[in-house]
Formats: sequence, structure tokens, C-alpha cells
Amino acid sequence: MVQPWQDTTLSAHVRAADLLARMTTEEKTAQLSSVWLGADVETEAVAVAPGQHTYVAESAVLDALLPYGLGHLTRPFGTVPVEPAEGAARLAELQQRIRAGNRFALPALAHEECLTGFAAWQATVFPTPLAWGATFDPALVTEMAQAIGSSMRAVGIHQGLAPVLDVVRDPRWGRTEESIGEDPYLVGTIGAAYVRGLEAAGIVATLKHFAGYSASRAARNHAPASVGPRELADVFLPPFEMALRDGGARSVMAAYNDIDGLPAHAHHGLLTQLLREEWEFGGTVVADYFGIAFLHSAHRTASTEGEAARLALAAGVDVELPAARCLPAAGDLPEELLDRAALRVLTQKCELGLLDPDWEPVTGDVPIDLNPPHMRELARKVAQESVVLLANGSGVLPLGPGLRIAVVGPLADEQAAMLGCYTFPRHVGVNHPELPAGVEVPTFAQALRAELPDAVFVADPAAADLCLAVVGDRSGLFGRGSSGEGCDTADLELPYNQGALLDTALASGTPTVIVVLSGRPYALGRWADRAAAVVQAFFPGQEGGAAVAGVLSGRVDPSGRLPLGIPYGPGGQPAPYLAPPLGLHGGPSNVDPTALFPFGHGLSYTEFTWGPPQCDTPELPTDGETTIRLTVRNTGDRPGTEVVQLYLHDPVGTVARPEVRLVGYARVPLDPGASAQVHATFPADLAAYTGADGRRVVDPGALELRIAASSTDVHHTVPLTLTGPVREVGHERRMRCEMRVK
Amino acid sequence: MVQPWQDTTLSAHVRAADLLARMTTEEKTAQLSSVWLGADVETEAVAVAPGQHTYVAESAVLDALLPYGLGHLTRPFGTVPVEPAEGAARLAELQQRIRAGNRFALPALAHEECLTGFAAWQATVFPTPLAWGATFDPALVTEMAQAIGSSMRAVGIHQGLAPVLDVVRDPRWGRTEESIGEDPYLVGTIGAAYVRGLEAAGIVATLKHFAGYSASRAARNHAPASVGPRELADVFLPPFEMALRDGGARSVMAAYNDIDGLPAHAHHGLLTQLLREEWEFGGTVVADYFGIAFLHSAHRTASTEGEAARLALAAGVDVELPAARCLPAAGDLPEELLDRAALRVLTQKCELGLLDPDWEPVTGDVPIDLNPPHMRELARKVAQESVVLLANGSGVLPLGPGLRIAVVGPLADEQAAMLGCYTFPRHVGVNHPELPAGVEVPTFAQALRAELPDAVFVADPAAADLCLAVVGDRSGLFGRGSSGEGCDTADLELPYNQGALLDTALASGTPTVIVVLSGRPYALGRWADRAAAVVQAFFPGQEGGAAVAGVLSGRVDPSGRLPLGIPYGPGGQPAPYLAPPLGLHGGPSNVDPTALFPFGHGLSYTEFTWGPPQCDTPELPTDGETTIRLTVRNTGDRPGTEVVQLYLHDPVGTVARPEVRLVGYARVPLDPGASAQVHATFPADLAAYTGADGRRVVDPGALELRIAASSTDVHHTVPLTLTGPVREVGHERRMRCEMRVK
Repeated sequence: MVQPWQDTTLSAHVRAADLLARMTTEEKTAQLSSVWLGADVETEAVAVAPGQHTYVAESAVLDALLPYGLGHLTRPFGTVPVEPAEGAARLAELQQRIRAGNRFALPALAHEECLTGFAAWQATVFPTPLAWGATFDPALVTEMAQAIGSSMRAVGIHQGLAPVLDVVRDPRWGRTEESIGEDPYLVGTIGAAYVRGLEAAGIVATLKHFAGYSASRAARNHAPASVGPRELADVFLPPFEMALRDGGARSVMAAYNDIDGLPAHAHHGLLTQLLREEWEFGGTVVADYFGIAFLHSAHRTASTEGEAARLALAAGVDVELPAARCLPAAGDLPEELLDRAALRVLTQKCELGLLDPDWEPVTGDVPIDLNPPHMRELARKVAQESVVLLANGSGVLPLGPGLRIAVVGPLADEQAAMLGCYTFPRHVGVNHPELPAGVEVPTFAQALRAELPDAVFVADPAAADLCLAVVGDRSGLFGRGSSGEGCDTADLELPYNQGALLDTALASGTPTVIVVLSGRPYALGRWADRAAAVVQAFFPGQEGGAAVAGVLSGRVDPSGRLPLGIPYGPGGQPAPYLAPPLGLHGGPSNVDPTALFPFGHGLSYTEFTWGPPQCDTPELPTDGETTIRLTVRNTGDRPGTEVVQLYLHDPVGTVARPEVRLVGYARVPLDPGASAQVHATFPADLAAYTGADGRRVVDPGALELRIAASSTDVHHTVPLTLTGPVREVGHERRMRCEMRVK
Repeated sequence: MVQPWQDTTLSAHVRAADLLARMTTEEKTAQLSSVWLGADVETEAVAVAPGQHTYVAESAVLDALLPYGLGHLTRPFGTVPVEPAEGAARLAELQQRIRAGNRFALPALAHEECLTGFAAWQATVFPTPLAWGATFDPALVTEMAQAIGSSMRAVGIHQGLAPVLDVVRDPRWGRTEESIGEDPYLVGTIGAAYVRGLEAAGIVATLKHFAGYSASRAARNHAPASVGPRELADVFLPPFEMALRDGGARSVMAAYNDIDGLPAHAHHGLLTQLLREEWEFGGTVVADYFGIAFLHSAHRTASTEGEAARLALAAGVDVELPAARCLPAAGDLPEELLDRAALRVLTQKCELGLLDPDWEPVTGDVPIDLNPPHMRELARKVAQESVVLLANGSGVLPLGPGLRIAVVGPLADEQAAMLGCYTFPRHVGVNHPELPAGVEVPTFAQALRAELPDAVFVADPAAADLCLAVVGDRSGLFGRGSSGEGCDTADLELPYNQGALLDTALASGTPTVIVVLSGRPYALGRWADRAAAVVQAFFPGQEGGAAVAGVLSGRVDPSGRLPLGIPYGPGGQPAPYLAPPLGLHGGPSNVDPTALFPFGHGLSYTEFTWGPPQCDTPELPTDGETTIRLTVRNTGDRPGTEVVQLYLHDPVGTVARPEVRLVGYARVPLDPGASAQVHATFPADLAAYTGADGRRVVDPGALELRIAASSTDVHHTVPLTLTGPVREVGHERRMRCEMRVK
């Protein structure tokens, strides 16, 4: 007989509730748990820090757990290199073992990392999220994410632990490379685009880290976040709102940090009052790995691991990751909390088909290619669009033919300068530095030789027509790189003494192009004005070498824009561009945080003119909208892409607000001589901010829209006046400025 | 006929209310105003930044204002050098002119700076507040402040704009030297001690800056403060509570910064709800100089200067400083706001005798000595107690007789390394770098030669028995020094390339003692373990040279303790010691903020043993207290002073809290072989913290009192258990641990 929970004609919620009612306390608890099978516990061949491998279970341990069922399976592909089809077969076998173990024959929900592509061996390695930010191209990011999601589905994965929506506040943070940028609108739009793609492929997207993680003191990973409620509401939370509403994400991960003392994993206000009650989120909240135990061991807000689990569950965490450790120690948990969390997990499993009678695991019988041509092509496109030409004052770029070129710098011929820390080889390989990616990852130097077949490569800069000085980061984990999770830095000086390398290169007298391949911005003030050109790429992935080389050769017109500013000097952090006047300039301080290259900056090889904007309704009510039209023309002799950016300057409010913030943008690709019309539909809602009394409002009064090529390079200003009463707005407010290019 | 407001038998409040009722709107407004008479506007011979001299009135301007009366007179001694008696006479003449101008014959309330002593020419220059913090000696600070206050009264001053109670969070801040330290208990107890002294002399003490100023982003002066309500309540506010309750301060100055977006000058929650309603403060709230105008020009929360004045008045600011500029532009102000502020000002004037019929200004007919022997003696004592011996591993200190000594370093022979930025010559002299102090200020080198008459001073370290490498700061204002208001720094690298000087000195092979004379801690990790000894003094004032030299010679036993940690490296700020485990150590970050020399650290030339502590009641209710007894013995052969420090470690709470925080301390001076008993009375109230629900509570459960010689050098641990219910506590709670030495 088919039970209601097996009846596919009923709603997921009804089916999950029916199943829940049949479960024992132990079975419910098991649905909130995960297991992390380490293929090789002895050698710590998993991406965990020392001491944390106690979370990794040996296969035999699993047997004791299975009679109650299992909620999640942690990283089945993320521990050791395995052929995709073989991995899928192993996972299918494991799922059958799990199903056979419990009386409902329920499989587990398998989650994996997918921050720069599916973090599995032989999977396409895409550029890091900071590079997605640099593309200013949500549509392309959606396409990429959908391809990533499809490949994960193909091997039996259900949930991906991405994207990172932390707004960068201090790029000394090692996880800056995992983030999209320093502006909430950019992070929110690009992040939501990624979520749309992943979810369209049937993969549960996981928004992380909720919330305030990037505000950790001095950018030290896990350190306390000194953040008040207004900054939280207006800077850190909007990307999550956008990715839930506009992206449809079905999972949220709690953050490691505390916010003003209260750890996110125990933050009822965030996880329940805001997320559930105000935003009406219906998916699952998962713990960050070890995050529940940290309530006991690090935050010291729980006297035991069991108490930590109770606190987390009460606050609104549903699933303990990477493995059940605190939950089993918690003893009797309030049944209503167990039910609340288990219902969410079961509902999600139902939506994924895991409750259907005919569910079958992916078998892996057929060959699986995780790096097919269309994904390589997508990786190439994202990489190309992400390269930022910072300076080209000498016009040395694009490179002419037949040059003698010296390529200097320890990173020029290293894969570690191309791949973010969540790529399979850099992440899983934390304990195996020589682990191959399983895909071809040409270094920059290799790609350049392929790009410039007629160039002559020489060793000593003095004998060259041109020097390419390649500097930046090696990504890694926990101190094994200069960028990546745990690889925070005390300042923004180029690591590995690469500043001295630039000093030497620039002193040689040979025109020198600085190429930065990094996971964060580094201070370039000492060298930028003496360099012939400066090019920035953020860990551009397996196709990144060709993309950067293509920009240098001119095959690719550079169209990336900075998702965060590049500082003049290495100290003085944090200095986000998103700041009121007293935080933006030196003012009464002799430390001036003005960026060397500001947020949104990026050059092209061609030139554009921006016609005067027309605004159909310069006066609009606080619940109205207006449309601005602008013609952009390519007046140069090469095809190129302009990125039209819209910034909001609100002259007066009840609290100090950023001088400007991004509220819209559009890429405008144009052939030489061609022009396009850009239409921006600006809703007054975008002027909303959290005022002195803590309510989010749209104030009447004057506004200024700045149509700009960067946060400081303003081409036109459109004055607007909002009329009517102060209007309080909530989660339903419009959060996007639609930009169309005709 | 004597009016009620002139009747000295009535209460100040009744008299002020009577006077207020007789005043016109213009007269009330005038009481909220100040005038800053610049002696030399053309040459900007006043301590203001460019552009701000528009606040400085020429004498002729005054005539137009006088018919309505005048609230304050700004810095009558603070603009140019003037003989004290002549200054007093000028002030008296001005007061008579002011009285003659208004129908009530009211004088103005004259305020001055007194952060490192009365900031007037020829006045004793005391050590900077960071040095007061290093003394751990509230009684001495009270004595100093009373002497300072008496000298101000002697020339006709009524209010002093000190102390600074900002808890240091990031010592890159230029105003670190003006602060007392990085622990709220130390800042609160030393700050309250200063206030007691100043108020005992009849001078109105002004607590500044209320609040959160030292949290300014990246320690850039005036930048936004990202602070949540719990951190505000538990870190930034307690020193103000202590200085109001235990010190009796009668004025509070609003801070320049915003807190989570809301500028302090417009912060009704802080200035009225907390300060007036909860803390029942009855004195005046004064604006920081230009702080009201900044609401318009910098924070942009007011569309005009007039609106800025309205906002500030409504929030709870009473007096615009340094001059009335926004208030007169405000147009019609609500009468009840004017009345509220004017009543406070008039009540204070009444308390000061300014409403008495027989009030007469100080005439200045007799010679006035602002630097008499007893004040020089106090300056010497404070300086001596503030010198911190950081390291003496080689035992090279105290110096033996007849040494050949090389003194190197650009600051060894500079007054700017001895004097804080609020001393008369460094502050007023901002536009006159060569302005003399008017008192004798021997440089370190001069004092050393006097201290060691039989030493031979040589130029090249190699020929010396010992090298004294003197490094540190020049104090100044607005970028004209390396420390001081506006002199923020991007990192904690020694300024002026003095690190290279240490490299050279240490490479010479001659044993090198590093002497740091600075306004903030600097990274010493590169050199400390190779130095023969390290000595730290914080701008020790006019007697500071002799104090430091006396420590080197052994005439003075070093007894200073660090009021903030000294970092290993120059980056990675902020890194306050007051942090939970995840903010205190590297943990999951490869940037380790562990201090090289921690808060509370300091050595002596003698040795002490600390007997085991006895606790009379290890189990006490959440509203109880307990007494701990401990015997300290000087087991060395020199007299010396131990500083017994009590730290609280609370293992579990509802929010993440600092690993330890200071809750008590006592100086214990002992002759060789002598011992003393230290009694500490610890009230459970000291365990109060602001919990997850925002209420300040004392939790039942285990506590640990750590009896220690620094925040990390724990001699004994006393376990305590608090019993009974969770107890909510407010402003009435006990905030001090009484320590007696018998």
C-alpha cells in the first residue's frame, strides 16, 4: 500500500509531515545528521584542519547509524581523486546501503562544494567568485552555474555549498577570493544569478555565510564581528534577500563568527525571526562545518557539545555538518524543535524526489565527462570577461607582433596562481600539494607562449622589448597559501617578497607590464605609475591563462571591472568604498584610504562616448519609478564592451550613509562605430535605507543618480526628487534596477 | 532687591530656573553658545585645522553678541603664549566686558584643555594619559588632577576638557596617547580618579568622547564606528559610568564619530535616554569642537547647519563649541529644548558661583606660578611610575658605573618625544613648531647626562660598552607628528624609518637597550629578543627624561605596567586583548594577533613571591561578594613595587565574551625582604555582562579569578561559584573591586 508520504500527487509539505509523524525521535534526529566518509583517515586526505578529522567516519562506523536513517552525506567526491563514473557508482552503492538500513528506505541528501565549479576530480575549474564579480555579467554567471549544477546532478549530488554572499569589508580576509565583491548590489545580483543557475539544474543552492562573517575583526578568520543592526541590515543582509527572492535558494548556511557577541549558529533573531518569520524562508538552515561545536569550544556560549546542539537547534539550525557529533550528545531534545527541523529536511528531500517510491540513485554505468567542451567554453568566457585592464597609459597593450618578451615572477608558471582555494586540487590537495586537478590547467606562461607564437621569450628583462612581471597569490587552505580560507594576511603588501621583484623589473628600464593573478587586491601604489600597463585577474581558473594572454595580445578586449578597490598602500585596512564621507577620505586623519583603482574601474582597448541621459520622470513618489535613457557609442576602431554603472548618492538622511553605492549596471558590447541605448528603470525602493529609528524607509527629498564608468568616474548626473511621505518598506521592496540594452 | 536667582540660600536648580524664566529666547540661546577669541586670526595661531579658523572671532565681533550674554568662553589661554598673571588679568577684563554687556551681569563659563596638565604657557607638562594608565595608581592621578585643577582655578578657568575615556581598540589611532588604555576597568578607575581630582579643585571635568570614538574604522580619526549595542555597553560605556558615579564629573562631550550610522551628536539614545534617564546625569553635554556642524558637512544627516543645531539640541547636546555657528542659524528652536539646555548651563554656572551677586573674576594682580615645585614633583612621580621595563633578559639594567654609552636615534634629543599632543607647545604650536613650552623640558639625552655624570658618551655604537637606541614618536596635530590628534597611522611600524636604526644598532654587536618614547605601542617583534633590554615610556612629560634615565640608572625601580599590549608585527590591527578566544589567538587564521608584550606586563629590578590566595567564600550568591587574601613578598635585594592584578575569566555565557578582563589591581611597594597582605573584595556584580537578550545580568555558575602579574602571567587561580537566579543589574551595580594593601 502506498503511504501518503509516498504519494507523488500530494504536496511535498503534506508528504513530509506524514512521514515525520511515523518517525521515532531517533529517526528524526538522524535526518538532521550527516556522515563524512573519509577515504583515507590515516593520511588526513581530506580538506580538514588538524584535529578535525575526528569528524570523518570510517565506513564501519556507518553501520551503527544506518538503522535510523541519515539526513546528509558530506562531500562524497571531495576527499580523494576518483573517476566521475566510479564516484557516481560508489555513491549509488552507498545510497543503496543507506536505504537498506532504514525502515523507510530513505536515501541521504548528498552535498558537495561547488564554489569554483564542482569541487571534484576531473571537473571543470571555473574562475573564483571575485572573478564572477569582475564580469558584471549575471546572465553568464547563471549559465555557468546551471552547467555546474547539471554536472553535479549527473553524479548523484543534491545540494551545493555555494555561493558565498559575504560582502567584502576588509580584503585582508583570506576568503575574499570566495566572495563576489565589496558592494551589496553587485554581490546580490551576481550571487542571485549563480543561485538561479544552480537551482535551475535541480541542485539546492546554499547561501553562505549567514551573516556578518566578512566583518571578522582585522579580517582574521572566525574573529568577532563588530557590527550594529543598521550595518547588518544595509550591507550584509541584502545579498541574501536577493538570492532568496530573485534566485530561489533553498538552503542557508550559518556563519562561524559572532555578531556583537552572539554567535550566528545560536542567533535566533537572524535564523528564525528574520529568515523564517520576516523573509518567509521555507528551506533548510545548515551548520557550517564544526560550527555547532564551536559554540562550545570557541565561542563558549555552551558548556557542552550537547548544549551547543540544543542552542543551535533552538535558534534555527536544522542540520549539523559535516557530521553528527553535538546532536547525538544533546540527550533529550524538545520534540517541537526536532519536528521543526526534520520537517524542513524531509520536505526538501521530497522536493528532490528522495521520498518517491521509484527513486533510484545515479548508477554511473555510463562514462561521465565533468569537463565537456561546453563547460570549458563557459569557463573561458567567464575568465575572459573577468580580466581587468587597470592602466595602459603607455598604450603598450595590446602587444605588437614579434616582441622579445621577458616573463618574470615566481607565479608565472604556477597553477596555484590560477585556481581558487575551493577548487579540487587546491582544497582537497591541502595535504597533497602535488595533487593534479584532473583537468588541463595551463599556467600563465604556458598560455602566453601559445598565444604569441611569434614572440621571442628571453630570461633577463634588460634584453627584452617588454617585461611581463607576474605577481599575486598562491591559493591554499589554513596557511598553506597566501590566499584562501584561513590564509588571512596582516596587510595588503604583495606576498612572497614580490614587491622586490617589481622594484627590480621596473628598475631595468625595460617597459614593464604588471600582471596580477590573485585572490585579493594588493597595494600597487609603489609601482603602478611607473608600469607600462597593469592587468588584474582574480584566480581565473583552468582557462584563465588563455584569457589573460588573450587580453595581452588583444584577441580579447578587456571588459572586466573591479569588484573591489585596489589600495594605494598596504596598511590602513579596512577601507571599503562603501562609506560615508568621514570614512571615505582622509579628512581629519592623515591616513587617506582613497583607492588607487576604485570599485568599478576597468579599461578597454577601444573608446566610448556616453550621450546625455534622459530621465522621463525626474520627480517621482516614494513608491514610484523612473526611466533613464542613455546612448553609448563605440568611437574607437576595435570592438569592445562598456560597463554602464549607476550609483546612488543620497545627500541627506537620518543616519550617515555611503557617499555612493551601486544600484544598477549593464554590459554594452559594441562594434566599432556602433551605438546602443541603455534603459534603466529605477524604482524609488532602491533608495531605501535603515534610518535612525531602525526602520527601513524611503525618504522624500533630493537624490542623485550618477551614471559612471566606475564609482568615482562619473559621466553624467541625474537629479531626482522623491515626493510624498516617508515610506516604510520591508522584504517585499524592489531591490533591482532593470537595465536593458537595445 | 535680590532676585531669587541671586539668593545664595536657595538651591542651584531653583535659582537657575528663576533666572531662566526671566530670559528671552535670545538670551537663552546665548547661554548655549561660546566665543573663541583668536589672538591672531591671520596667522592661524590657534590649534585649528585649515578652514576652521572661521570659528575664531575677532574681538570686535564680540560686541554684537554681548547684549544677550554668553554661555562659554573657549580656550582663553590656549591660543598664544601669555604670562599666567597677564592671562588671568585679560580674562578678568573680558569677563567684566561680558558682564557689562548683559542685563543680568552674568559672566561666561571659561573652559580650557587640561589633558596633560593645564594646556597653557608656563604650566607644568604632565605625562600623557597613556602614562597615567601605566602607573596603575589612581591615588596619584587624583593628586595630579587636583593640582592641575587648582592651577586652572587660580587663573579663572571653570571647566577642563578632560579626561579622554575612549577605550583603545586599535592603537593606529592618533589619539591613543590621549587615552588611558585598552581595558575598560583600567580606563574607568584611572579616569574616575582624574575626575575626582579635577572636581575636588572646583573644575568641571568633561568626559570625552561620548561614545565609541576609538572604534573609528581602521583607527582613522572621525571614521564610522561599527559597534553593536553589546560591545558599546560592555566596552565603551563603563568608563563613563565609573567617572560619573565614582568621579562626579559634571560634563560630558559628544564624540565626532557615528555609531552604526547614527552620529553621536544626534544620538538621543545615548545623550538622553542612557545618560539622562538611565544614569540620571544632571550636568551639561557639550559638543566637540565643530561637531554640530559636522552633522551637516560630514555625516550629512542635516541639510543645513541650522538643522544640525536642531538635531543636536533635540538629541541632548546643550552647548555648541568652540563657537556658536549652527545655533544662530537654526531659526526658531523649540522653546522646551532651549529651556532644557539653558537650565543645565545656568545650574552649572550657579554651582560655580557665577550667579552670585558678589562674584568677581580672578584678577591676576599677584604673580601666578603654574609650574610650582609641588607640581613638578607630581609630574616627576607620575612619570617615574609610568616607565615600563619590558625586557631585561641580559640583566644589563640597571646600568653599572663608568660605562661608555652611545645614545642613538633622532628622538633622543627632542622635546617632541616627551610631550603629548595636548601639551601647550605641541598643540597650540601646531602652526608654530618652534614655540617653547614655557617650562623646562629636558630631552632624554640631556636628562641621561645629568643622571650618569660618570658615564662617557660616545658617537659610534661600536666603540661603546652599551648602546641606547631611542625610538618612538613626535607628537603633533593633523599630520604634523607621528602621534596625536589626526596623526593616525596605517600600521604599527616605527615611524621615521627608525626600524632601520634598530637594525643597525643591533648589528653593531654592542649590547643595545631599546628605549621607546611614544604615544602608542609599536611592533617590536623584529628586535626585542636581540635587545639587551627594552624600556617603554609614553610621552612622559617635562620630568620624563629624568624618570626614564632614573630607571636606566636604577635610581628608580621600574613599576609601570602596560596599559595596552605591544604587538609583535606592524599589521593585523585591530587586535585588542579584550577578545573572546576566536579573536585572541590565530586559531583558524594564519594571522596570530598574540601580543609580544601583553596588557599589564612590566618588570621590576627586584623579585617577588606571591603566596597562595585564600578565599573566604568561594561560593556566593549573584548579589554577594567575597574576599581574597594574598601575601606578596619582596625576595630580592632592592626595594620595588609589584602590581597585583585580578582578571576575571567566565567560562560560559549567553554571548561570546573576552577570555579575561581586568577587575582589580593594587600597587604593592615593598622593601627588600618585606611582605604585605593584599585584600581584594570582589562583588559578584563585576561578573555582569550584556547577554543575548540585551539585558545586563549576573549569571549563576562557575567563575575563575586569575591573580596575575599581567593578563597572561597568571600566578594563582581562584575558582568561584555564583549561586541563585540570573540577576539583572543596572547603573546602580558595583563596578569596583576594592583592593587594600596591609
